[in-house]
Amino acid sequence: MNKGSKLWIEALDVIPGGNSLLSKRPERFVPGKWPTYYKSAKGCTITTLDNKKYYDFTQMGVGACIFGYNYEPLNKVVISSIKKSVNTTLNCPEEVELAKILLKNDKFAGSVKFARSGGEAMGIAVRIARAASGKDKVAFSGYHGWKDWYLASNIKNSKALDKQLLPGLSVLGVPSGLKNTSIPFIYNSVESFEEVVNKNPDIGVICIEGARSEYPSKSFIKTIMKIAKKKKIILICDEITSGWRLANGGSYKITGIKPDIVVYGKGMGGGFAISAVVGKKKIMDFAQNTFISSSMWTERVGFVAGVNSIKIFKKIKLWKTINKIGSKIKINWKKIAKKNGLKIEINSVNALISFKFLYGEQNLLIETVFISKMLEYKFLSSTSIYPCLAHTDKYLNMYFRAIDKTFKFLYEEINFRKFKDFSNIKIRSDAFKRLNN
Amino acid sequence: MNKGSKLWIEALDVIPGGNSLLSKRPERFVPGKWPTYYKSAKGCTITTLDNKKYYDFTQMGVGACIFGYNYEPLNKVVISSIKKSVNTTLNCPEEVELAKILLKNDKFAGSVKFARSGGEAMGIAVRIARAASGKDKVAFSGYHGWKDWYLASNIKNSKALDKQLLPGLSVLGVPSGLKNTSIPFIYNSVESFEEVVNKNPDIGVICIEGARSEYPSKSFIKTIMKIAKKKKIILICDEITSGWRLANGGSYKITGIKPDIVVYGKGMGGGFAISAVVGKKKIMDFAQNTFISSSMWTERVGFVAGVNSIKIFKKIKLWKTINKIGSKIKINWKKIAKKNGLKIEINSVNALISFKFLYGEQNLLIETVFISKMLEYKFLSSTSIYPCLAHTDKYLNMYFRAIDKTFKFLYEEINFRKFKDFSNIKIRSDAFKRLNN
Repeated sequence: MNKGSKLWIEALDVIPGGNSLLSKRPERFVPGKWPTYYKSAKGCTITTLDNKKYYDFTQMGVGACIFGYNYEPLNKVVISSIKKSVNTTLNCPEEVELAKILLKNDKFAGSVKFARSGGEAMGIAVRIARAASGKDKVAFSGYHGWKDWYLASNIKNSKALDKQLLPGLSVLGVPSGLKNTSIPFIYNSVESFEEVVNKNPDIGVICIEGARSEYPSKSFIKTIMKIAKKKKIILICDEITSGWRLANGGSYKITGIKPDIVVYGKGMGGGFAISAVVGKKKIMDFAQNTFISSSMWTERVGFVAGVNSIKIFKKIKLWKTINKIGSKIKINWKKIAKKNGLKIEINSVNALISFKFLYGEQNLLIETVFISKMLEYKFLSSTSIYPCLAHTDKYLNMYFRAIDKTFKFLYEEINFRKFKDFSNIKIRSDAFKRLNN
Repeated sequence: MNKGSKLWIEALDVIPGGNSLLSKRPERFVPGKWPTYYKSAKGCTITTLDNKKYYDFTQMGVGACIFGYNYEPLNKVVISSIKKSVNTTLNCPEEVELAKILLKNDKFAGSVKFARSGGEAMGIAVRIARAASGKDKVAFSGYHGWKDWYLASNIKNSKALDKQLLPGLSVLGVPSGLKNTSIPFIYNSVESFEEVVNKNPDIGVICIEGARSEYPSKSFIKTIMKIAKKKKIILICDEITSGWRLANGGSYKITGIKPDIVVYGKGMGGGFAISAVVGKKKIMDFAQNTFISSSMWTERVGFVAGVNSIKIFKKIKLWKTINKIGSKIKINWKKIAKKNGLKIEINSVNALISFKFLYGEQNLLIETVFISKMLEYKFLSSTSIYPCLAHTDKYLNMYFRAIDKTFKFLYEEINFRKFKDFSNIKIRSDAFKRLNN
């Protein structure tokens, strides 16, 4: 057993679920084989506790490490700010600088609030939008974090979130008084959206993801915009995952949606923790009529990381590179799958590229064997990749060679060997359904 | 106008309220004169945007900077971890290490969840406690952050929180369905606590601060423990502010309260953002029956800061030094006030030392002039101090000399000059009532 798997057993004993994030649990990959912990990382290369090196062609810090790991131009300024103190009784000027940079990017907006994590920023956005609209009810589509406002949608019907990113969420600990305060609709379904809005005339807030696996259709956007305007509903666009991957800031800039509030996180800090709520001034001013305040939101590291990440994004037009890399991956997945006779389907958003195997009930087994085999070739992989700046041609070509061998292997298993050598493999669990299946 | 005040005007234009934390707003000190922003800091010395140096004898990062600013032994390990990458697809081993260190300290506990900010950790604690108790209703005393669960207490009666730390909180944006889900009682009042519990037989969670300005009385603790046991109520002790100031971990260790869950933040990371929920295993396991997960909770900086801060706390028995410093401040405030004929009252908790002026309606004016005068002597001050390791005798003696001159000045203003030179001064606003008045 590798050192990471041993430490994971210890982790499960002291932390419920073993860590603070579902997406970094080894059960999502290959239970028992996944290295699970890192010692150090650079570019797209990770060194494990056993001093083994792997190339990361999967999550890149669940999208946060958009430059790749340990990006020196960013580290340099963060370290310099630490040496000047990260926290005092006074404020750091980078908080104002980051607000100004964001507002320069998001012309529709006039005001910014900050937090450290994405779920927290979404909580702030929903609080402000509820305050401004004077209504409690939120209609949403997609994944927006762990907060009560979101999970509340499962109180009435525990399957309400099943068509969103995370199926089967339990709502234990979410007050029953929140029943009917958040109502999900299906992404890209005009019909589903209209049904929710018609059944709930008291909706004050709409919350959607900027982009995930597919782009929003024109009719979907048009309908949302029309109804939001007509009913004076506040529109929040969650760009925590999509920010700076598709455009200079939110993906709303290319999809044509016109949000009242956008929320950023993850990539915005290049791996460091920072999140932001950017919105129209008259709406954001309601933050002053409620209470939104936390000590650790003022710690300097996040602001410095945010300011300098965005400066670099803009300078190198990062989103263009991310899209190019995603496009190369898409083309090669398609080509290599065809060459090896493997049936897969690839999503449409290059910057958040993923595929699914088309083998029905066998998918989870095939995915597990896929991840396991790729580990033998020194790749951390899954059916989705968050492309990053460190995914250069050199590593991409190594990855495609490994994919070729693995797809060939999978074809043979599916058609001839029937996975008989894998009867004892622990199958991965599928926490984020919509993304991976 | 100083550079900080100029930047604050710009900040108010782009951030509602100007920043992310009430306690760092200049309006709480001397509007227009307070330096507001820092460039760098070291020990208890802050350099402002105008390159002026001040000695901080007030908030020390609202309690977070328990070592003083820019503490090299801590910075060194954090910087070293940044150079090994702060975030990857895999987990950092320091998450498990920090959990183990906390559990070694809190013998009653068996499991830990992490977040980055204090309010967020309290949100996790309340979610888990509600899930475990199967009841929505929380009885609480004191200040516990910006979250819906806490502000909900003001839905029924907008004055409900007035006797807690923050008076006059608005509840805009908090769903009305949360009405009656959180009920405040008065700290150290057995009568108030019993009244709340008797009127609300369905309380599942009690939430109190470990310590703030006064210690909990024996009868108060005894009553809470008795009723919690009898009614199987889960007891959360919020040690975000008090942690490691009074004992090796939570102040519950010296007050005798026996919590089911303790929550840490602030000082725990020595100024870096990290927070933790530490509780009995059978309760914490309910985290697995709900959904609590966020990407940025897994960023390495917080874990590394937490592990190494606690190691140092224990090695140097930091809480003993903090208490000694607080005690020196208390003795000297008392002595200097008496010498100068100034009427003040000092609280009982040395590690979170504060005083109040006893001049009724004149207090806010006197506090403003006090802060203003101390600025002239190069001290950032207010009526409360979070003692830290950098408050050595050298600086304490300088501080006491400045206090002596300022108290003399205040005596003369109060009794003879009647503040006639201060008719145009902008009076500070008093956001945190219980702490300062």
